[in-house]
Amino acid sequence: MSVNSFGRLFRFTTWGESHGPALGAVVDGCPPGLPISESALQPFLDARRPGQSKFTTQRQEPDQVRILSGVFEGRTTGTSISLMIENVDQRSKDYSEVAKAYRPGHADYAYDAKYGFRDYRGGGRSSARETAARVAAGGVARLVIPEVTILAYVVEIGGDAIDRANFDPAEIDRNPFFCPDPLAARRWAEQVDAVRKAGSSVGAVVECIATGVPAGWGAPLYGKLDADLAAGMMGINAVKGVEIGDGFAAARLSGEQNADPMRPGPQGPTFDANHAGGIAGGISTGQPIVVRVAFKPTSSILTPQPTITRPDENGRSHATELFTKGRHDPCVGIRGAPVVEAMMALVLADHKLLQRGQCGG
Amino acid sequence: MSVNSFGRLFRFTTWGESHGPALGAVVDGCPPGLPISESALQPFLDARRPGQSKFTTQRQEPDQVRILSGVFEGRTTGTSISLMIENVDQRSKDYSEVAKAYRPGHADYAYDAKYGFRDYRGGGRSSARETAARVAAGGVARLVIPEVTILAYVVEIGGDAIDRANFDPAEIDRNPFFCPDPLAARRWAEQVDAVRKAGSSVGAVVECIATGVPAGWGAPLYGKLDADLAAGMMGINAVKGVEIGDGFAAARLSGEQNADPMRPGPQGPTFDANHAGGIAGGISTGQPIVVRVAFKPTSSILTPQPTITRPDENGRSHATELFTKGRHDPCVGIRGAPVVEAMMALVLADHKLLQRGQCGG
Amino acid sequence: MSVNSFGRLFRFTTWGESHGPALGAVVDGCPPGLPISESALQPFLDARRPGQSKFTTQRQEPDQVRILSGVFEGRTTGTSISLMIENVDQRSKDYSEVAKAYRPGHADYAYDAKYGFRDYRGGGRSSARETAARVAAGGVARLVIPEVTILAYVVEIGGDAIDRANFDPAEIDRNPFFCPDPLAARRWAEQVDAVRKAGSSVGAVVECIATGVPAGWGAPLYGKLDADLAAGMMGINAVKGVEIGDGFAAARLSGEQNADPMRPGPQGPTFDANHAGGIAGGISTGQPIVVRVAFKPTSSILTPQPTITRPDENGRSHATELFTKGRHDPCVGIRGAPVVEAMMALVLADHKLLQRGQCGG
Amino acid sequence: MSVNSFGRLFRFTTWGESHGPALGAVVDGCPPGLPISESALQPFLDARRPGQSKFTTQRQEPDQVRILSGVFEGRTTGTSISLMIENVDQRSKDYSEVAKAYRPGHADYAYDAKYGFRDYRGGGRSSARETAARVAAGGVARLVIPEVTILAYVVEIGGDAIDRANFDPAEIDRNPFFCPDPLAARRWAEQVDAVRKAGSSVGAVVECIATGVPAGWGAPLYGKLDADLAAGMMGINAVKGVEIGDGFAAARLSGEQNADPMRPGPQGPTFDANHAGGIAGGISTGQPIVVRVAFKPTSSILTPQPTITRPDENGRSHATELFTKGRHDPCVGIRGAPVVEAMMALVLADHKLLQRGQCGG
Repeated sequence: MSVNSFGRLFRFTTWGESHGPALGAVVDGCPPGLPISESALQPFLDARRPGQSKFTTQRQEPDQVRILSGVFEGRTTGTSISLMIENVDQRSKDYSEVAKAYRPGHADYAYDAKYGFRDYRGGGRSSARETAARVAAGGVARLVIPEVTILAYVVEIGGDAIDRANFDPAEIDRNPFFCPDPLAARRWAEQVDAVRKAGSSVGAVVECIATGVPAGWGAPLYGKLDADLAAGMMGINAVKGVEIGDGFAAARLSGEQNADPMRPGPQGPTFDANHAGGIAGGISTGQPIVVRVAFKPTSSILTPQPTITRPDENGRSHATELFTKGRHDPCVGIRGAPVVEAMMALVLADHKLLQRGQCGG
Repeated sequence: MSVNSFGRLFRFTTWGESHGPALGAVVDGCPPGLPISESALQPFLDARRPGQSKFTTQRQEPDQVRILSGVFEGRTTGTSISLMIENVDQRSKDYSEVAKAYRPGHADYAYDAKYGFRDYRGGGRSSARETAARVAAGGVARLVIPEVTILAYVVEIGGDAIDRANFDPAEIDRNPFFCPDPLAARRWAEQVDAVRKAGSSVGAVVECIATGVPAGWGAPLYGKLDADLAAGMMGINAVKGVEIGDGFAAARLSGEQNADPMRPGPQGPTFDANHAGGIAGGISTGQPIVVRVAFKPTSSILTPQPTITRPDENGRSHATELFTKGRHDPCVGIRGAPVVEAMMALVLADHKLLQRGQCGG
Repeated sequence: MSVNSFGRLFRFTTWGESHGPALGAVVDGCPPGLPISESALQPFLDARRPGQSKFTTQRQEPDQVRILSGVFEGRTTGTSISLMIENVDQRSKDYSEVAKAYRPGHADYAYDAKYGFRDYRGGGRSSARETAARVAAGGVARLVIPEVTILAYVVEIGGDAIDRANFDPAEIDRNPFFCPDPLAARRWAEQVDAVRKAGSSVGAVVECIATGVPAGWGAPLYGKLDADLAAGMMGINAVKGVEIGDGFAAARLSGEQNADPMRPGPQGPTFDANHAGGIAGGISTGQPIVVRVAFKPTSSILTPQPTITRPDENGRSHATELFTKGRHDPCVGIRGAPVVEAMMALVLADHKLLQRGQCGG
Repeated sequence: MSVNSFGRLFRFTTWGESHGPALGAVVDGCPPGLPISESALQPFLDARRPGQSKFTTQRQEPDQVRILSGVFEGRTTGTSISLMIENVDQRSKDYSEVAKAYRPGHADYAYDAKYGFRDYRGGGRSSARETAARVAAGGVARLVIPEVTILAYVVEIGGDAIDRANFDPAEIDRNPFFCPDPLAARRWAEQVDAVRKAGSSVGAVVECIATGVPAGWGAPLYGKLDADLAAGMMGINAVKGVEIGDGFAAARLSGEQNADPMRPGPQGPTFDANHAGGIAGGISTGQPIVVRVAFKPTSSILTPQPTITRPDENGRSHATELFTKGRHDPCVGIRGAPVVEAMMALVLADHKLLQRGQCGG
């Protein structure tokens, strides 16, 4: 039942806390014989890595991934692949405030309510550092789906959206925002810098497109491709919304406007539009898979917030105030882009194997 | 791995097609000793039942639920509960057109691509009739969580939203739209009637609130309460988007605006706001759980759409046109409200048991 | 987590009690396009059906299987297949004794301890009638593995074993004991008849061989083919032991005696022996899969046994005596043979799909 | 679906190969707040550790377990617990022979058939070194079930059984055979020494008893306590048979002989006997759980065995001979005792949580 695992045939389990010695993932179900190496996985971790610009947290983590099992002579063996990333910059600081009171907007109170206590150092298990593990697992997933190209990018920060007319995929890696619109990237640099200096934070929307997914992946009715994507994306730290294709906008369309008419094409059907985001009835249609993910603003801000203390010996909580002194991302959605990509890869790899297992191809 | 099952400790599996003899659900993991009867489940099915107003499909189905196992002397026994609903109004009609070509926007093409063929009568397994089975299962789930009150209602149809100032829960059952705003209900009656007469369709947004959920339900990191809700909701027919709390709007807020400050209260903390929708770090906080779900317009419309035929003996598809003659909902989102309620109950029941199993309470 | 389900990619869930209206199975994950019909499944149910000789229970059940979903135009669709078998001979009798006290050797006390109460009519969910559902599911599983031939037979009743020199597969269906040795069958007829007349019961050992399983099925380390077989067989009512290949006898051999030397053959290796029972490291080797299953004597006997009552209003149990008046099998192992066959098919179908999913064939 | 995972609510996943840098387990679902430390887990690993007498393999592994996550201030946090054991004595030797041909009785051929190739160093993933990981996980499981006492011991080596009259639990830790009969231990010392010197091997039977298990653990019908034990035990390297209570001997008893009559006792019922091994209908009865496990003789022997080479470039295998030069246990069943104990703990911990989750206690 493993609540720290995700996937069916291609399945991974993560472990680790923000300030523990390491974190990692065990990938189970990866087909045998795929060429793999630590250096092939590292670029995905590097893309997510903190401390690379002033717009992300200044925690310095090399995020070097090690492969501890499941690989022999440079190829996957079909057995479980253990990936480990050591934490090196767990700054020793005074956590007594956070230990005694709950940071509003964070998982502190919820963890205490659930487990009775919590590892309060840097958020413990609820820290976004865990996403390094799924990005590593996502790197393995990509080996399973070489026919698929996945691209995630930020389309909106603090309500300022890109202009689709400026969309240039090559731009995405040229700025620290994974932004496909160079003009928006420039505006965001100013906006996020101001936010950062003010000790505030801001939300973002990430879009992810997967091209090359053949028709037929997805497993109705409770393993639908879109449902699995929704679960995967909503489970990323700070995510509050997920939509496929036109998503919430589709609720405002008529049936005629929302139709994706089909035409015969040389290699399968062509579609006049892709309102559906490449998924119908939970199954891929051969069109690009389109997902959009909403990230809330980072809960860590410098403005003190009213909150309560952990219950004292009489079981009573007291009013207090708290603000977050530690290093943090002013816009956690930015570094969310590589994580969204990884989740897309993980879901697709799983469904490719499922399709092969159940339907033979 | 059961792709027709949902849930972990409280788990259900559905079966059945639109035009088969029956459909049903097997509920596994329901605790023993809960009072249950067919008549206690029936109201939930009645709420979802078609043919009750001119705004929904005219297919006449009594949707009588039968309990075939797992109950003894009016109480659940702890073993698997089999629920069955017979189909009675599978109108015998000519399906030759749908058999030969793919209805755009429907799952027809995707099913063929996946399985090589499909039960084309009324959409087969991909029909929204399946939701009757999960509504029945949801009725069982509600027995497990008597402390929780769940209310789903339509907040927007075709872009016309309710006025929150008019919100009246008592109104929801007084109109055929599950609409909490009497003025909006009147406007929608006109709008949907016009859409129906034009053979068109329109989308909708459903909101669902669960109150009474204690803090501590949810299972980080890959069984998060919000991730499970996202999967459950996105898996409902015609759903294209899911958001928790402020959802996509949160992406436009600053950290200060999005904060949910806490104060000591007589029975646990009180919160100044609920931008988070009752979930932090994947765990309930004790605030109301708030989910919004976007339904696309029904794909079945009377306007002919360009589409393609099934491949002929030479593997070639041809251009054709298709429009949907059968009975259908002009706004599938309306009857989605009881289904959203059911999914909320199913997810919460599961997490209550999980919390008890892992943490003892 | 579904504790009423079994299997990974090919997965089934059963429901139903001895004296409920019906019982059944939902099969999920069956590949699409396989020819299937109720009449093709019926022979497997007929083989297990009670009341066919004086050596089995006299309960008269036609055990007609109905397919309610997942099949279209005579072929599996790839969606969940619902199988239902109605109970018709739930004899109305006085259960007050069994309701008030626990039959020793039965699950009565354990069910009460677990669930707080139980459906005491004919054993409720713990009745061996449930095996009809898995035999039906096993019939579907066989469609998935046409390359495999499965044969189960009784090799020992009450300590009287067959003579391997007399082994004749054709004999198995010619006697009411699934006995491959005609001489043993004659001896058993006398023995079991005497047991039956004495109101006693006797144990049995069933052996099952699957030929045609290619090398490579099985999923180390916690989905090993032998581990899954052990789980499947041990879960059959009245089973107390499972062994693969030489099983317990292998513990008495030396490494030299237990070796299965290999030789090059025209189509893969040949083996000098099959001590391993066709499985090494949890993976099939291409040799026949050999499993032996020990059934205890039926717990229902006419000799009164000391036992205790359900706790009274003061929570106190009292000494009493109980003997089983109802219809029962004098040797439950006999009808176990078709159930063992079904479980073998169910495990192998699952592993065929797994192998295809993970390793591509 | 994770084939390298075991358990439902208390679930672990293992990884690692015989000659990789490390091996480990991730334990998911452990309740929060349990006191835990590396030094508390170490004794279980020490009991299984090789090289402690001349009767086991001479590979020298300290088997130091490290806890990498899921623990804070000496208590479990409720999140995933990562356990790692480094390999230190992977002797660099010439594996070219094993790389080119299949050791009979080992998983070499099966792994190649399944995966297309294999890590041949010391058996790779199929090595019994993996059991160190489950012994570590078993140490965590024991924390969950402090009410239960588990004791595994060897009852038979090479056909030479202990005398039950000599049974002394205190004796088990006083000899290198986990033998409760001092006289048998002396005989075995001679026998196993002779076997070892002859380069041969010998099988064994391990018995395991768990006392203190309350009535009510186990989850019918496909999560039965005995079925889960069977799966867990059969999945241990070299195991070929599992029996519960009287097991295969029960097949030779009459219903009267096999009865376990019940009497009212001061704290629940007392039983006249325990033929059932503490489990009825898949649920614990409150009696001691009794399991016996058959280990085949180690397949590694010094006598050359006929075998075949890996297919050459023409896909053809050739006849050859192979014997195992490496370090190995002359009787792998001996060190199986701590592994059987661990699997018992793992299954029981899982069922305790399941019972709490489903039935509330």
